[in-house]
Amino acid sequence: MTDTFTVDTKRMLSDLDALRGIGQVSTGVVRQAFSEADIEARSWLVRRMEEAGLEVSVDALGNVFGLPPGNAPALLVGSHSDTQPEGGWLDGAYGVIAGLELARASLEQGGPAIACVSFQDEEGRFGNLIGSRYCAGSLSLEEADKGCDDNGLSLAEARVIRARLPAPRDVSPERFHGFLELHIEQGGALDLAGEQIGVVEAIVGIRTERMRFCGQQNHAGTTLMHLRRDAFQGLVTMASRINERLAGVATPATVWTIGRVDLQPNANSVVPGRADFTIQWRDAEESRLDQMRDILYSTCEEVAGEMGLSWERFGCDSLPPTLSDPGLVGALSQAAGQLAAGKWRVMTSGALHDAANLSLRMPMAMLFVPSIAGISHSFAEDTAREDLELGLRVAAGAVCSYCRSRV
Amino acid sequence: MTDTFTVDTKRMLSDLDALRGIGQVSTGVVRQAFSEADIEARSWLVRRMEEAGLEVSVDALGNVFGLPPGNAPALLVGSHSDTQPEGGWLDGAYGVIAGLELARASLEQGGPAIACVSFQDEEGRFGNLIGSRYCAGSLSLEEADKGCDDNGLSLAEARVIRARLPAPRDVSPERFHGFLELHIEQGGALDLAGEQIGVVEAIVGIRTERMRFCGQQNHAGTTLMHLRRDAFQGLVTMASRINERLAGVATPATVWTIGRVDLQPNANSVVPGRADFTIQWRDAEESRLDQMRDILYSTCEEVAGEMGLSWERFGCDSLPPTLSDPGLVGALSQAAGQLAAGKWRVMTSGALHDAANLSLRMPMAMLFVPSIAGISHSFAEDTAREDLELGLRVAAGAVCSYCRSRV
Repeated sequence: MTDTFTVDTKRMLSDLDALRGIGQVSTGVVRQAFSEADIEARSWLVRRMEEAGLEVSVDALGNVFGLPPGNAPALLVGSHSDTQPEGGWLDGAYGVIAGLELARASLEQGGPAIACVSFQDEEGRFGNLIGSRYCAGSLSLEEADKGCDDNGLSLAEARVIRARLPAPRDVSPERFHGFLELHIEQGGALDLAGEQIGVVEAIVGIRTERMRFCGQQNHAGTTLMHLRRDAFQGLVTMASRINERLAGVATPATVWTIGRVDLQPNANSVVPGRADFTIQWRDAEESRLDQMRDILYSTCEEVAGEMGLSWERFGCDSLPPTLSDPGLVGALSQAAGQLAAGKWRVMTSGALHDAANLSLRMPMAMLFVPSIAGISHSFAEDTAREDLELGLRVAAGAVCSYCRSRV
Repeated sequence: MTDTFTVDTKRMLSDLDALRGIGQVSTGVVRQAFSEADIEARSWLVRRMEEAGLEVSVDALGNVFGLPPGNAPALLVGSHSDTQPEGGWLDGAYGVIAGLELARASLEQGGPAIACVSFQDEEGRFGNLIGSRYCAGSLSLEEADKGCDDNGLSLAEARVIRARLPAPRDVSPERFHGFLELHIEQGGALDLAGEQIGVVEAIVGIRTERMRFCGQQNHAGTTLMHLRRDAFQGLVTMASRINERLAGVATPATVWTIGRVDLQPNANSVVPGRADFTIQWRDAEESRLDQMRDILYSTCEEVAGEMGLSWERFGCDSLPPTLSDPGLVGALSQAAGQLAAGKWRVMTSGALHDAANLSLRMPMAMLFVPSIAGISHSFAEDTAREDLELGLRVAAGAVCSYCRSRV
């Protein structure tokens, strides 16, 4: 076994273009989990892995693994090949093909043991990142099967199409000593700064609360302003105040979003009696997430008291922050420093990724390349080819030094 | 013909209770325009009018008139007997039965010529106050027939049930020299002040605008706060600012309402790219309605500029304010001063009423009695019986003096 190997960036771009062709629509891709295009893409991946001499395992959920021969623990590299309903060509696909090239090049050149993977349904057609959760052992097939898409189709029904892939053979996470995920940033920080590489030291935690202000539904003509208990005005006042208050505890990377609002009765001539909304906040530190929650609750309480409203919570979906492995972060930083001097940074990921689920079972890190204008989940999503190539080379350098350090 | 007559308040209450029984649900009434219950109520009204010696005309739209014998111009008194999908027992019904009692008592006692009416579909199942608009000649039957209810049923289809009423005979507005409408206030001003009578000097004008803020739909995790163009946050900022600015030009009776909000894509994890909303504002003076519009537009422009958004308008529904007739207002005020000393006020109506449509063809005024706790369009809607009786007696006094003054 040799310490180093070199990747073929042109071969990676060629494979990436080929994958783009499966489900391509305009400049984007429509390849939702368990669609015809998704299964076609997974079958193509199986063939490419086999051609590279990797041993293919496709588990019951449709996660496609390419494993190096032998039983030595391998570094797993990958992402997902399913897309949003209107997806970009790089979201997930870049990490999958980068993983394929790393596993292939290393195998060809007698480098360290590298496996590659395409997880299933990262984009949430049937649930949240169910492929990597299943792989990490935190979601059973039985539970996953209950998930339904927006049309009410269950995963159990949709999974029938999986029969076109090789017979199910699950892969134990014990087979891997670490996980690396290359991904586009999906935000604008790198692009705006003219940087090429982001080394992810943490994936943010996410809290999502469904909440409600209740007031008094009333006639919009006869109810004088000072007699109103307008649920939407409660939301307006609360939203204004938390913007100021959360800014006081936020880091530059902290975000919060009111993404969903549903008024009752939602009519021109009626003072809203009820305002349902969701608020989501993200940060890399659990204690700051708690601080933000406290500000949110106390502001709701204050506004409700002042405006004669009541407020309710309907539970909080909570995903804790995930820390990358310092050894992997160090290896990535060293390689980035050599290959992208002055054009890289250590950063947090504001988006959730499969890597967060794998981190429960093994050391994990991520590498970001820029998204042009920060655009993702859109046909317009793109990254300079030069940056895609550089990302792969940085990863190769990091993988070599990291695997060497483990020996 | 005698100058004065006295009303039988117990007979009015008895008729009001009988009408309540048609379509009664719990303490409220479900009697939407052209429902079985509505037609049953109109048939009952026809019989009560005939028993009183009034000549009944039911026009093509189902407006039911009770006319005094002879061709002398009469004062028309009435309202509507259709209800909201979940209506109160007094909204409309009080004015209809008060009109019946005034016409009946005056006819019995040789008083002035008084006609009574129940207009059809004031509550807007098939359109806006179509019965009184048809009566005033501002809406043709052909146009009205195109209106549809929430289930897509057209008025042309729904009107088949009208066949159960007497054959259509339209009534010319020339037949009347004025219109008086008794109604519950539907707001809380009288009840809160412990007053019993409101003399309506104007019905507010109503502007309803459909508007939109457009920003950039984006990922709620990867899009940093300072890079966002969040359409909902635009609405929040605009709504906060106009609350302050409109308060600067408002009278105590001026109102504004954001009643409808629809976000795109309305998802937990997506920065809203679009916020559609309606804003409605009401005031008795056209110039103030214009001022409010200017504040609204300039605030939208300002907020859009600051937050990197665009804004659009999709047209404004505009109903001008309507002034009551000074002669009728004077007669009502004089009677209120005598019968409810210290417990009445001159006020504007924040709600639209059939009287606004009649005002295009004849002098008009309205008389309000209190709504307990300001509740209306609800099964809980109620008014003290004492106040219902007092309203009728004030109206009778006013009608006598007004008709005397015309001779």
